[in-house]
This record gives sequence, C-alpha cells and structure tokens, in this order.
Amino acid sequence: MKKKVFELLTLAAASPAPVHCLLPHSCHVLQESLLSSASGYSNYRGILNWCVVMLVLSNARLFLENIIKYGILVDPIQVVSLFLKDPYSWPAACLIIVSNVFILAALYTERRLAVGTISEMTGLILHMFNLTSLLIFPSATVLSVPSMTPVGGVLSLGVYTVLFLKLYSYQDTNRWCREIRQAKAKRLTRSYSCKYITVHAHVTYPGNLTHRDMYYFVFAPTLCYQLNFPRSSRIRKRFLMRRLFEMWMVPTIQNSMKPFQVPNHLIWLIFFYWFFHSSMNFVAELLQFGDREFYKDWWNSETVTYFWANWNIPVHKWCLRHFYKPMLRKGINKFCAQTAVFLVSAFFHEYLVSVPLKMFRLWAFMGMMAQVPLAWFVSRFLNGNYGNAAVWISLIIGQPVAVLMYVHDYYVIHYGGTT
Amino acid sequence: MKKKVFELLTLAAASPAPVHCLLPHSCHVLQESLLSSASGYSNYRGILNWCVVMLVLSNARLFLENIIKYGILVDPIQVVSLFLKDPYSWPAACLIIVSNVFILAALYTERRLAVGTISEMTGLILHMFNLTSLLIFPSATVLSVPSMTPVGGVLSLGVYTVLFLKLYSYQDTNRWCREIRQAKAKRLTRSYSCKYITVHAHVTYPGNLTHRDMYYFVFAPTLCYQLNFPRSSRIRKRFLMRRLFEMWMVPTIQNSMKPFQVPNHLIWLIFFYWFFHSSMNFVAELLQFGDREFYKDWWNSETVTYFWANWNIPVHKWCLRHFYKPMLRKGINKFCAQTAVFLVSAFFHEYLVSVPLKMFRLWAFMGMMAQVPLAWFVSRFLNGNYGNAAVWISLIIGQPVAVLMYVHDYYVIHYGGTT
Repeated sequence: MKKKVFELLTLAAASPAPVHCLLPHSCHVLQESLLSSASGYSNYRGILNWCVVMLVLSNARLFLENIIKYGILVDPIQVVSLFLKDPYSWPAACLIIVSNVFILAALYTERRLAVGTISEMTGLILHMFNLTSLLIFPSATVLSVPSMTPVGGVLSLGVYTVLFLKLYSYQDTNRWCREIRQAKAKRLTRSYSCKYITVHAHVTYPGNLTHRDMYYFVFAPTLCYQLNFPRSSRIRKRFLMRRLFEMWMVPTIQNSMKPFQVPNHLIWLIFFYWFFHSSMNFVAELLQFGDREFYKDWWNSETVTYFWANWNIPVHKWCLRHFYKPMLRKGINKFCAQTAVFLVSAFFHEYLVSVPLKMFRLWAFMGMMAQVPLAWFVSRFLNGNYGNAAVWISLIIGQPVAVLMYVHDYYVIHYGGTT
Repeated sequence: MKKKVFELLTLAAASPAPVHCLLPHSCHVLQESLLSSASGYSNYRGILNWCVVMLVLSNARLFLENIIKYGILVDPIQVVSLFLKDPYSWPAACLIIVSNVFILAALYTERRLAVGTISEMTGLILHMFNLTSLLIFPSATVLSVPSMTPVGGVLSLGVYTVLFLKLYSYQDTNRWCREIRQAKAKRLTRSYSCKYITVHAHVTYPGNLTHRDMYYFVFAPTLCYQLNFPRSSRIRKRFLMRRLFEMWMVPTIQNSMKPFQVPNHLIWLIFFYWFFHSSMNFVAELLQFGDREFYKDWWNSETVTYFWANWNIPVHKWCLRHFYKPMLRKGINKFCAQTAVFLVSAFFHEYLVSVPLKMFRLWAFMGMMAQVPLAWFVSRFLNGNYGNAAVWISLIIGQPVAVLMYVHDYYVIHYGGTT
C-alpha cells in the first residue's frame, strides 16, 4: 500500500505545472517586511506618539510631586530674575523697546523712497546705516551694561538679529517693487498672476508702507517680507488653545526633567517643538498668518545640507531669497555661495553666544564652519538610513560639545580655574 | 511734504484690488505645519533612526566596557545553563526532538487520506488525537520532569504550540484540497488563477505530501500552510548578513541595558524587532520564503483591535483563516467570533506562562480577556492620535503589570513569603 501512495505522489509531482492554481486558499504573497528599507514604507506617526507618551509617563510621577509641592513649576519671579540682576534696571526690556526706533526709521526711509524725495543711493545708504546700527548698538549695550544677565543678553540680541533680517528683507522687497513699477512704466514687464485667494483687501506698492503693515510684518512668524501675506480665513479657537497649552506644558516637562541629567540633545529637540511648532503656530494663528511652514521634514535628512535647509525654514527662506539667489544672479558659483551662507550663519551664531557671555572663543563659529567638510563627507560616503543616522549622531554629539566648551570656559572665568 | 506722502499712500490703498499681484517675489503660500495633525503628513522614518541611534549611543560606553572586560556578552555557557539545571539531562532539547513524531504522524495520516485508504472521519479523528497530544504531552512532561527550567519549559512549549497551529493548518488545507478535487471531479468548480510567478516547480495536490514539503513548512516563518509558497528568486547575501548581525547585536544591546533598569516595555519592543524582523527575515531569506509580512504598522494603531490584528501577522493570519472565517461560515455572528478568538488566544497565553512556571494564576488569561472591554472603550471614546496614545499607554502599563504579577507570585512561592 505504501508503494501505491508513493506512485501517486510521484505522478502528481511530475505532472506538468498548470497555469492556474488548484488551491483557492493561497494566503501568502511575495512581499517585503515594512521595516526593511526595501519596502519603501515610512509612516511612523505612531513612533512619534510613543516618544511623547514615554516622555510624559516617565516624568509623570515627578511632575505630579512637583505640582503638589510647589504648584506650577514655571515660577514667574524666577523667570523674571533670569533677566534682571537688579530689578530696578531692566536693560533687556529697555533695549527691546528701543528697537522701535529702527523699525520706524526703515519705514520712513521707504516712504521717502516711494515718493522719490530721496534718491535710491541715499535710501540704500540710510538703510545700511540703520541695519549696521541694529547689530552694533545692542551688542555695545550688552557689553557695557553690567546689570545685563546672559539670558537677557541672548534674548535682546536675538530680537535685534531677527529685526535685522526682517528689515533687510523689507528694504530689498520694496526696492524690487520700485523696479517693477519703473519697468511697468516703460511697458516692459508682463503682469504676474496671484497664486492665492485672500479675504483681506489687496494692497499694492506703495500702499503697503503703513504702520499697521510694518508692525504686522514685525510680529508675523517670518523673516521674508511680501505684500499681501497669505491669510487664514479665521482664528481656530481650539487650535489656539492646544498650542497655548503646549507652550505652557513643554517647559514644565523640561523643567521636571532636570534632575534626570537629560542629554542636552533632548532639550534641543523639546525646544525645537516648543519654538517652531507650538509658539510660531500660536502667533500665526493669532495673526491669521497663513504660511505655517516653519520647518520641513529635517528628521529624515540623509545629508547635512538637507538638515540645514529644512530645520529652520524662516532663516533658510531668508538666506535663499536675500543672500544666496542674489549672489548666484551676480555670477558667483554655487559652492562659493553656499560657503558664504554658512559663513554668515556662523557669524550670527558666534554673535548670539559670544556677546551675551562676554567671551570670544569662536567655538560656535568653528562649529558652523565644520558643517561644510562634514556635509561633504556624509554626502560622499553615506546615504539612506546610514546618512540619516550620521546626521543624528552629528546633532547628538556636536551640540553638547559646543555647549560644553562655552560652559567650561564660562565657569573657569567666573568661578576661578578649578579644573 | 508729509501730507503728500500720506495722500499717495491713501490713494494706493484705496485703489481697487487687481486680479494679479504686482510682486513676483511672493514667497509664502497658505499651508499647515507638518507636525499639525491637519497636515496629514506621516513620514517619520528619521524618528525611528533617532530611537536606534539614541539606544546605541546611550549604551555604547557600557557596551564597550563590557566587551573589554568579558568579551562577547552572550556567554554560551550562561545561555545553555538557562535551559539545563543538570547538564546531563536535556529535557527541553529532547522534547523538541520528539516533536518529529507528531509531524510525521500528520504527514502519514494525510497520505492515507489522499489515496482514500482511510475515511475522512477516521482521518479527522486521527488528526484531532495527534493535535490534542501535541498540547498535552509537552505540558505533562514539563510539569513532571524536575530538571526542566522555566526558560526551557517556555521554549519547548512554544515550539509545540507553533507546531500545533501549523499542523492544524496543514490538515485543514489538505482537506480543502480534497474537497476541490471532488468538486472538480463533478465539474462544479471553476479554475482559480495563480496570483504569483514562481521559478520553482509548481506542485498540485497530492504531490505536496512529501517529507521535503512538510519540513519546509515546519521551518518556514508562517503558520498557514499552502501549496506552492511564493518564493524569492535568490538569497541576498548582504541582507542575510545584516539580519544575522542584528540577531547577534540586539540581545547584546539588551543585555548591556540591564543595569539601567530599563522598562519592561522597551525590552518587549526590542524583542519584537529581534524576533519579528531580524530572525524571521533571516529564516525566510535562508529558505527563500517570499512572504515577509510578519507584522504590519501596529505602531500607528488607533484602536486596540487594530493592534492585535497587526502586530503578529502569522498568528493573526492563522486565526482568520482557520478559526474566525470558518466560524462566520457556520453562521456565528461577528462579535461572538471575535470574542472566541480572544478566548483561544487567552488560553494559549495562559498555557505558555502557567505550565513552565508551574503556577496557575490566570493573570495572562484575564489580561487577554480584558482586551475586549478595553477595545470597546478606546474605539468608543478616542480616535486619531489620542487613540494611538491610548494603545501605547495600555502596552506600556499593561505588560509590566502582567509580568510583575507572575514574578511576584513566583518569588513568593520559591523564596518564601518575604513581602
């Protein structure tokens, strides 16, 4: 009998393969696992939620304890004391209030230029003088006023740097408007179609040169000026509340993590979310500012260049529009222009760290300039997930090293050379 | 002069809005931030890489120290001693070797059925006897042999449970084949088209009833039998090496994390990756088994049901094909069928924990059954990212609680009631 079974089996196995399957119950298909890079799958929204849940849960106990003991953790007096050594002199706040002078100077110069009472050259000189003062005046103040704390210094220099970039964009854009107006007068230009629909009244040059328009731009979460920003149709109250809640919650979580000696890198990540997502979206929602692209998907960057071009979109947009592209138009080659952008970025990084700490060490400058060879190395030798891992490692290791350099030197200077 | 400026400005502002923009330099577009749930964006591959980099970096120091001190961390003697109290009696290994008897019993029963020397009823009874023995024999051995360690017990019971599911699928599928053959003989069935192209010879029933085919199925990373599994065209050596490296690396990392008191949940995540991605893909690559869907995107699950249906695809596929769908065909309603699946799953969870620990506490059983009301609650009250967070929290909190229950009771029994 056994022989019979085998005969049958051999017969069946040897029979020619049919073009159709006999079995309707096939339940396997040729396919890759999702986590294999070959699958091309990339939806990991859940992993992000996991990170948030782990962060919240791992701090929940301490967080609750702190709330029970001390109430809300963001102690207003402690926050204020960060800015003031002497509560009767508010140098940082005064400095920020004074910045209005520079804003109005830029506006009035533009008004003169619009009606032609001053020449283009005079206007340019006035603007350049105004912009240079915007960098020199606050740094001189920070360096000379002894009651200025480092945090107050960083904050006011930050405000002035943002204003510098904004007002540079303002004069550039208005000059372009005048050039178009002139070209139009000579019937040389074609009309440009409008890409967005807006419920707000449409403004044309020089109708934009109002205080209202200027201050809208100053407070709007962007560094690039344009007439008629795209506007959202209404303020979504729930969205606003969620962002406000995050703005309060995130520093609280961060505070409650201090005892854990959390890596510097994690603090930077949380800061990124707090500033670029919660705060900027909050301000934008309040101002009905429509363009919410404050960052792109830098977490997926496979090259260093991609990271720098996507983590801080307002600055990247400014660099591209007012620095990189004008250079290309002047015939400078791509690599030189890119290096120049990194140089300017390195200058501002150094400026924002050295002046408030009153310590000139060039670590921040060198850190930024080191990105150029690093970018070359990563793009040359690594790609895909390996490139991504290299970018993460450079962030995780690079930042704390740079910060440590300054902290070390700051302690050595202020508390004596203990090491 | 100031008046003139204002007149001009008012004029410009009041002029009717043109349909085209005067300014070609518009650089803002109405859009949402990527992290806003409204954007619909979900590519977070980089976040996954970040988790891996953080895991590796945060353990690198300890990892290197351990390697320098002790060499490779997976000490073979230590591993072996987990399975054996007495190295001269290898109960777990013996038990696994004996399992061949059941495999061959199933194959020979099928051969008899194929040629019709035994009736369908006799075959069914033989199979049921074989399958029942597959569950009773190893548990009786584990409970009666004193030299069996808990790890050895879990491992051998795991092997037997997998075999139980595989052989159940084997007899079910072969019976379907016979039914089709009979229907074909009566000219009642249409032919089914084949969905995949294979380079291997196509086999038809009963040509599949060979030792080679049976053992291929036993070792293949699936629980559902089918004739002519989809096969990959070749063994990719680099893929194989990467998975092998991971299979060695992942437990090493896990080992090096022990001193950190890492949450149980993280160990489960790492185990998931090690077993369902590295090991299963390794075996599949070696056997040129084409269907690599061992898990779906459970990390994005917004309901508990979605999680259970997607984290362990081999078991889910088996339940659907051999338990849930046959029940539906018999006219049982959906909810009852689903609850029955959870009941069977709860039984096996309890079986795999209670027997090796020789402790009957029903925690695992109740844990699984608690999923039914939990699933109802989450799907009723939460959705989107909130649902996802709820699933994560139930995983993060639920697993350690269940494990703790057993560990606590195990210590109380074996080391006296100290608490």
